[in-house]
Amino acid sequence: MSTEKCFANGSATPGPVPKGHIRLYSMRFCPFAQRTRLVLNAKGITYDTVNIHLKDKPDWFLEKNPLGLVPTLETPAGEVIYESPITCEYLDEVYPEKKLLPSSPFAKAQQKMMLEHFSKVTPYFYKIPMGRRNGEDVSGLEAELKEKLAKLNEDLANKKTKFFGGDSITMIDYMMWPWFERLETFELQHCLGSTPELKKWTARMLEDPAVKATMYSTDTYKAFYKSYVDGKPDYDYGL
Amino acid sequence: MSTEKCFANGSATPGPVPKGHIRLYSMRFCPFAQRTRLVLNAKGITYDTVNIHLKDKPDWFLEKNPLGLVPTLETPAGEVIYESPITCEYLDEVYPEKKLLPSSPFAKAQQKMMLEHFSKVTPYFYKIPMGRRNGEDVSGLEAELKEKLAKLNEDLANKKTKFFGGDSITMIDYMMWPWFERLETFELQHCLGSTPELKKWTARMLEDPAVKATMYSTDTYKAFYKSYVDGKPDYDYGL
Repeated sequence: MSTEKCFANGSATPGPVPKGHIRLYSMRFCPFAQRTRLVLNAKGITYDTVNIHLKDKPDWFLEKNPLGLVPTLETPAGEVIYESPITCEYLDEVYPEKKLLPSSPFAKAQQKMMLEHFSKVTPYFYKIPMGRRNGEDVSGLEAELKEKLAKLNEDLANKKTKFFGGDSITMIDYMMWPWFERLETFELQHCLGSTPELKKWTARMLEDPAVKATMYSTDTYKAFYKSYVDGKPDYDYGL
Repeated sequence: MSTEKCFANGSATPGPVPKGHIRLYSMRFCPFAQRTRLVLNAKGITYDTVNIHLKDKPDWFLEKNPLGLVPTLETPAGEVIYESPITCEYLDEVYPEKKLLPSSPFAKAQQKMMLEHFSKVTPYFYKIPMGRRNGEDVSGLEAELKEKLAKLNEDLANKKTKFFGGDSITMIDYMMWPWFERLETFELQHCLGSTPELKKWTARMLEDPAVKATMYSTDTYKAFYKSYVDGKPDYDYGL
């Protein structure tokens, strides 16, 4: 768990990435960055974290990644990698310990297709809370999210496996997890109402050491989220 | 080049995929399906093509891929793979002849980051023609596209290589090519006005055997596109 306060513009440039390490540019509460943190932890990779003030990004960060996105990885050779699925696949290829992606090309393609489907789920975690805040009727959006979660439940029921890639955790589970961790924060847990297999999956995920190592409490997420919607995100909340 | 007329709903189900073959569900003029056709051709893979009537999709196709998208691959074992970058990476992994993706994890990540950037370019090929048709001022959209193409030009100029992944064609070139082939069809060739390196790249691409094997003339694309905007796409145009 990173205890480093975030770097805003004007802050000192962090030194070069030490040999044998890899650096993650992150934001403590970002679900996309959590994907990479999960993979780093699951594989036992030695890494250091530089948290970024996303509303006031340091120039030296924008020089490394002009898009200014987290997660971004940097190697001791100065190689820069971003986009969460790309960072995770890179880590899985470079660090052979505990492979998270299957070696079979078809099984790997299946994980990527699942991820593509899941990319249609994540926007609801923004749209529903924002809609509620604006006093809009979000029942239609909630019904859509429920339908998508029901589809995931059906996938698990059909597979008859404990996790989405088999009976042990693989990459796809870590790619999806961060949003499930935030269901209660966004008052969306009722959308899991009729998805018993998915509920069992979330219970299993909560037992995973990498999940435990990267998660925050719902109270923490709620406090951060409040500061975020108030327009002054407290990236260092709790430090 | 496929000479098979498209299958609409009610058409006979094609037989199983022959052993040693792979099947591509396609639409002759679809740029995303062309990515897969380029890779199949470049790697010299034996495949058969089933063209789909995208406005009247056969039930048997929707059973294989509920999203109803092309490109979709099917193997003799009944495995189904879709989403163009996923199909292309699958083919590159399963068929080791003429590897199109680099073996270095960082070089591979770079290709994926380039593809992610390029995914912001393709929507202009829809938005600009549609805007013009609706009598809208598209000069802002054209300026945005020009800027994105200028960035690709700069990438090539900085790399000092003939293609985007080095001095020979690799996966990323094939992923981007179909839209360049359609520049004239959509009257966008002026957007290449100040991109000399990108122009040289397009000239080099036109010499590639896989590009030659999968391309259609601008006249053909224009005729298809006219039928498309008239609401009656002629998927079998020219057959």
